[in-house]
Amino acid sequence: MATAAVAMGSGPGGSGKVLVVAGTHGNERNAPWLLQQLALTATGGTAGALADSGLAVVPVIGNPAAFAANSRYLDRDLNRSFEPALLADPQRPEAEVERARALISSHGPQGREPCLVALDLHSTTAAMGSSLVVYGRRPADLALAAGMQQGLGLPIYLHEADARQTGFLVERWLCGLAIEVGPVPQGVLTARVIQQTRLALEEGLQVLAAARQGLCRLPRQLVVHRHQLSLDVPRRADGSPAAVIHLLRQGRDWQPLRPGDPLFLAADGSALPFVPPDGVEGSLFWPVFINEAAYGEKGIALTLTQREVWPVEPAWREALQQVAAGLLPAGA
Amino acid sequence: MATAAVAMGSGPGGSGKVLVVAGTHGNERNAPWLLQQLALTATGGTAGALADSGLAVVPVIGNPAAFAANSRYLDRDLNRSFEPALLADPQRPEAEVERARALISSHGPQGREPCLVALDLHSTTAAMGSSLVVYGRRPADLALAAGMQQGLGLPIYLHEADARQTGFLVERWLCGLAIEVGPVPQGVLTARVIQQTRLALEEGLQVLAAARQGLCRLPRQLVVHRHQLSLDVPRRADGSPAAVIHLLRQGRDWQPLRPGDPLFLAADGSALPFVPPDGVEGSLFWPVFINEAAYGEKGIALTLTQREVWPVEPAWREALQQVAAGLLPAGA
Repeated sequence: MATAAVAMGSGPGGSGKVLVVAGTHGNERNAPWLLQQLALTATGGTAGALADSGLAVVPVIGNPAAFAANSRYLDRDLNRSFEPALLADPQRPEAEVERARALISSHGPQGREPCLVALDLHSTTAAMGSSLVVYGRRPADLALAAGMQQGLGLPIYLHEADARQTGFLVERWLCGLAIEVGPVPQGVLTARVIQQTRLALEEGLQVLAAARQGLCRLPRQLVVHRHQLSLDVPRRADGSPAAVIHLLRQGRDWQPLRPGDPLFLAADGSALPFVPPDGVEGSLFWPVFINEAAYGEKGIALTLTQREVWPVEPAWREALQQVAAGLLPAGA
Repeated sequence: MATAAVAMGSGPGGSGKVLVVAGTHGNERNAPWLLQQLALTATGGTAGALADSGLAVVPVIGNPAAFAANSRYLDRDLNRSFEPALLADPQRPEAEVERARALISSHGPQGREPCLVALDLHSTTAAMGSSLVVYGRRPADLALAAGMQQGLGLPIYLHEADARQTGFLVERWLCGLAIEVGPVPQGVLTARVIQQTRLALEEGLQVLAAARQGLCRLPRQLVVHRHQLSLDVPRRADGSPAAVIHLLRQGRDWQPLRPGDPLFLAADGSALPFVPPDGVEGSLFWPVFINEAAYGEKGIALTLTQREVWPVEPAWREALQQVAAGLLPAGA
């Protein structure tokens, strides 16, 4: 937490803002629309209605070039481009690596307009509802997620120990998580998803504002869905899918899956049951990101998690309040 | 029908096949998957299970280059590229114009492997369910649609008198229509949509097979939703949307819309009611293609139709049977 100490020590009453990122993926249109409309309809400065939280908020479009192209990305997934080794490699000039560097330079914890916390707003074609994605087990992240879960009952996907997926945006800030809402097609604005995104964002800012004042109240328990493994659909030799998600599984994110349950549907109409891969233990899994359009290219048809109930540790709240104490008030 | 006469006269027992097109838009993945799997799992020749209809069927990917790119199109919408003047213009080298020419050369009514009828399989992000799109009022098309409506109860969108949208694929065949299924995100395979597409396709082939044998039975009435006009969302000066489809309208394709009903939702949360544009008569409309992702670039947030009940004319059946009499049997 050396970086936090530096940032917190640089000014009275706080030194950084909350970064709210929309359009990290350029074809996820709802959060960018929300931020733009909040700014346009606001009377209280650039952050607009977001300032109601009492916090200084910086709204940004994560990947403006991809947003203009209505495409997830140009060269590579921006939300897999925040790996320190990648950022430091001068031989990596891809558009999204450059954009990641620019975001850190401008709004990183030690950037020109420092932000200490990042809330990254996403949408998905999977039926995730309103949910949170937490990357790893940083205490401040877990506290923020616990506070938001207490307020809105949001399910949490804990993404960890997945060597195939690294370099997430929020990891470069002192605290942060992703808000993930679906189902919604790529490129489509829908009122329901905009509303869900707004509610979750406002809840996140409220938890941060309370933490800034040392008034953060957390539940006793946190329910997490901890990453286990991702599964692809069966494929033919040429790489084309030989089956699709089963009718009885499509749209059933966060609902239990047991060995033997129908998982895929083959072309001849037969059901392919779920068989845990070798080395995977457990007899009860909770799928997430079922049939997310963008994950086909990653070879992910769905991700299996295990639901766990963790006691909320006092150190989490302390960590969140330590970060939040460095946040600037609205108008700063 | 001069072309039909030529085609029908060129061989005993028929001279042409049924063209079944999937992936006319490259990011509509379900119909291509269906055709590929039917072919792979079949034992009766290249058309596979489609031959169960008793008809000679040619399955093709409409836009293979766009399909490979998982993109609706490369240069322009293939399903707006079949305008005769465009096809004849040597100064138009776009990929989709070339592809339209190639499809006509290979599988047009006078192509190398002649097809007389075209069934064009589409999907949409709008909640259209299983539905048919008929372009104009060719008697054989209306007969085919009436037969399919009788069998499966499918609603029909009659696309006509829309100067902004022309050059549809099926118009270059003697008879044809589009099967349109949704909602499904672009780029996503879902078992339900595949199943719906298969049922509608099989029904279409059954109607054609009956017509080929002179046994076509049609209902007394045809219910059509006749194109009136398309509406865009309100936009700001920079072209960005200033409102979205209202919560109470999203997903309500084929359900009545009256003046004063909430239609859009502005950024400040206020509802914008439906106000018929100047010159538009009527007090009851039936919206289709509500929030289709691909139509944003066309400035179409939804299309308004009028529901009409037409008596089925004997001449329609005669026209369909005349075309269908030229169809080759399976295995030909």
